[in-house]
Amino acid sequence: MQPHSIWGGLLLAAITAMPTQAQDIAAGKMKAAGTCAVCHGQDGLAKVPDAPNLAGNNAVYLARQLNAFKNGERKHEQMSIIAESLSDADIANLAAWFAAIKVTATVPQ
Amino acid sequence: MQPHSIWGGLLLAAITAMPTQAQDIAAGKMKAAGTCAVCHGQDGLAKVPDAPNLAGNNAVYLARQLNAFKNGERKHEQMSIIAESLSDADIANLAAWFAAIKVTATVPQ
Repeated sequence: MQPHSIWGGLLLAAITAMPTQAQDIAAGKMKAAGTCAVCHGQDGLAKVPDAPNLAGNNAVYLARQLNAFKNGERKHEQMSIIAESLSDADIANLAAWFAAIKVTATVPQ
Repeated sequence: MQPHSIWGGLLLAAITAMPTQAQDIAAGKMKAAGTCAVCHGQDGLAKVPDAPNLAGNNAVYLARQLNAFKNGERKHEQMSIIAESLSDADIANLAAWFAAIKVTATVPQ
């Protein structure tokens, strides 16, 4: 691979890893405080056994999952309904909000 | 609903929320240190944009997702292949291990 191809590849990787929608963390926080928080917590840590922690996940992953619920690729009794009503901006904002929560992990000894 | 129906309902909810397989956290830790850690980290915090944090998630959720990848209900380029090779015991142990990692969340002000 030529050097310029490597840079091209890195640039492409960087672009594809970036959410395509502008993100508004404050709007995401406001949106999340309603429906999402019931199962995923105000701090993004799940309150029910069948919900994941959202706090500190990468925005790329979070947006991809919300889109997967919205387009039916991933299914869940509650999330399939909730995601249906989310706009692209909602998804970008929610992903940015949960990604902005810092998490630390302590591994058991 | 009669009082005994309420208790029956609570009992049923408790049973269905319990993993059906005995869990071996140490075995889960050993299994996770290989393939899982590449994307999900030794501490269960994701190292790549398209992988979720697994640390501190409920074992019920984690086992359900691994089973969903295994049976094709949920699809992902890597996870669909990886989950195929996991036994019920592997899934229970991995879920127990990642659930045993303590996480704390710090919400941005």
